[in-house]
Amino acid sequence: MNRFEPNLRIPGPTALPPSVREAGGRQMMNHRGPEFAALLGRVTSGMQPFFGTASDLVVLTCAGTGGLEAAVVNTLSPGDPVLSVTVGVFGDRFAKIAEAYGADVTRLSVEWGGAAEPDAIRETLRARADYRAVLLTHNETSTGVTNPIAAIAAIVREMAPEALILVDAISALGAVPFAMDAWGLDLVVTGSQKAWMSAPGLAMVAANERAWAAMETARMPRVYLDLLEHRKSAVNGQTPWTPAVAVLYQVDEGLRLMAAETPAGVFARHAACAAATRAGLTELGFELFADRRFASDTVTAARVPEGLDWKTFNGEIKARSVVLAGGQGRLKGQIFRVGHLGSVTLEEILGALAVLEEVSLGAGRSVVPGGAVAAAQRAALDVLRAARAAPVPA
Amino acid sequence: MNRFEPNLRIPGPTALPPSVREAGGRQMMNHRGPEFAALLGRVTSGMQPFFGTASDLVVLTCAGTGGLEAAVVNTLSPGDPVLSVTVGVFGDRFAKIAEAYGADVTRLSVEWGGAAEPDAIRETLRARADYRAVLLTHNETSTGVTNPIAAIAAIVREMAPEALILVDAISALGAVPFAMDAWGLDLVVTGSQKAWMSAPGLAMVAANERAWAAMETARMPRVYLDLLEHRKSAVNGQTPWTPAVAVLYQVDEGLRLMAAETPAGVFARHAACAAATRAGLTELGFELFADRRFASDTVTAARVPEGLDWKTFNGEIKARSVVLAGGQGRLKGQIFRVGHLGSVTLEEILGALAVLEEVSLGAGRSVVPGGAVAAAQRAALDVLRAARAAPVPA
Repeated sequence: MNRFEPNLRIPGPTALPPSVREAGGRQMMNHRGPEFAALLGRVTSGMQPFFGTASDLVVLTCAGTGGLEAAVVNTLSPGDPVLSVTVGVFGDRFAKIAEAYGADVTRLSVEWGGAAEPDAIRETLRARADYRAVLLTHNETSTGVTNPIAAIAAIVREMAPEALILVDAISALGAVPFAMDAWGLDLVVTGSQKAWMSAPGLAMVAANERAWAAMETARMPRVYLDLLEHRKSAVNGQTPWTPAVAVLYQVDEGLRLMAAETPAGVFARHAACAAATRAGLTELGFELFADRRFASDTVTAARVPEGLDWKTFNGEIKARSVVLAGGQGRLKGQIFRVGHLGSVTLEEILGALAVLEEVSLGAGRSVVPGGAVAAAQRAALDVLRAARAAPVPA
Repeated sequence: MNRFEPNLRIPGPTALPPSVREAGGRQMMNHRGPEFAALLGRVTSGMQPFFGTASDLVVLTCAGTGGLEAAVVNTLSPGDPVLSVTVGVFGDRFAKIAEAYGADVTRLSVEWGGAAEPDAIRETLRARADYRAVLLTHNETSTGVTNPIAAIAAIVREMAPEALILVDAISALGAVPFAMDAWGLDLVVTGSQKAWMSAPGLAMVAANERAWAAMETARMPRVYLDLLEHRKSAVNGQTPWTPAVAVLYQVDEGLRLMAAETPAGVFARHAACAAATRAGLTELGFELFADRRFASDTVTAARVPEGLDWKTFNGEIKARSVVLAGGQGRLKGQIFRVGHLGSVTLEEILGALAVLEEVSLGAGRSVVPGGAVAAAQRAALDVLRAARAAPVPA
């Protein structure tokens, strides 16, 4: 961010650091040659620690939604009973994909703003446990809620040991601690345009041996999104179809930056920016939409206050180069969202809050000048202090 | 191309011009905002003249293969009888996609190196004409053959008027004259990494009203590649899922360069480079693989001569910064391919031929020093002279 570049505070595509931008402008290469194989190998092995997995990971050329479709169509057959746990737009989308391909979907829908709580999962699985798969959203971008995936997965493993756990981790993986193998997740999806600080165009899918085995017999049709084909090609350092090479250049560079910062540093920065955003918005009198206990560290949703003309208000904010996201689906006009993931810095969050404060004052809202940035800075420092005091993970 | 950059002579991804590289390094934007709508609108309207269509065109985030899958799954239902005309690897792939989704596929397979000839199509359709769709490859990248699509389409329209004509035009559209509407093609697919001089990651699909109407009742499952969803979102200047924004920046710039050159200029340049490649390779003693009458203007395949150790030979070529493509599928080791599409210049073709000559001499092959570049240059001049003499299209 500088004064010639917008402060892009949407939850993806996230702003690209200068060196990632440079990577996106590189010349093409032969995607069937050794240089590409080295690139694909670096991206794969660079991502695995963030997934928390030693399993094979493949790179698809598609949006995150394509990754979700790949999760469904590669592991399931028409008629398979599937439990879809949904807390927002993206959970609903995951369920719709399974339905479109003929799965027998049972929905456990949580009121938007809330999380999928372990007890509710347990009750649902007590009633019926023969699901072939459970679809989970790690971080629900539409509401700013992060589900307690580890606790949920533990209950699924206990109550429905045969069920595959398929996880949409698109909008937080890489920004927060994640442990696919330790949590017993079978398949996990992410996307290049989120924590990875790259342009959209790639979805990364990791699957454990149980999931890879399920793909051998799954009967939903697929060609383009066939994960086994991708795994087979990856052995030769290739993808089965022409990949989004330039985005791969960017993810490679994004991973280099993340490794230099260290995963712990990346996570602490996200936690600090999230705490700052929540504190600042609260100080400005906005009611946070998500259940506080499950507030996301990558995106924060706040209610549009009664009586505020959002379109005019947001127009003023945009005129000051801060780009916020609106509500999706039935939350359109009800909430707004602030993205704080990827290349985000505290400076950008303070800047966005300063603009929100200025526009709030202009709109006659009752706010204390300087209050939001002060509250945000205090909250960030608290998080960073706690992170420094925390034991360093092995 | 300069001496610090390889002469990338593969049939895609094609080399990016400097201004397209710059576009690929631009900062992200909100893909739900007005700036994106303007970008998508420019790309759509900039492409339509090259398709030769006034029909709606949508942009998918996927490889060309995803575009082919979209063509199939959006217009067909399981059990539909489909005629697949295949002259190589990509024709086979189109057929396989239809089979994977349950179409009843009849293949008209032509010996590789040959084209789908109108008479053979007529005979096939005389035997049976109730096909729901005919799958055609415009330019077969694996063999360097361009099918006579206009003539084939005319016969399909005559013999099987109900059949949808679905065309893979990925590897030549934009580089050669094309007239979707005039030829009566119902759906046409291309990809960003070919004539459009951009990175891979986007497939563009145009469909006429007949094809859009077919999509309303087609029952093959799809979500990510749903074309009607893309058309619906396009009305609001959006895509249903997060698009490969950086590739769209590049296609936008590529189209600007192509418009500045004029379509006639782009086509003449491709024809000249193709003629130069064929003449130069022939002069070097390589036997061209494609039926001369249907030789592609975007990629040329030549047989690996008996007794030539291709791996060593190609290694020497690559060491001199010329990157050629090998054979695909069962042509692996049998042929090599020279791409001449997108940003290609005669200078690059002459440079590649000079390297092939030098390495041929080093390998003890009998070639006349300077013969290949002279033959290539003569052939190119003949084409350019004829193009200048041709009446300017209205």
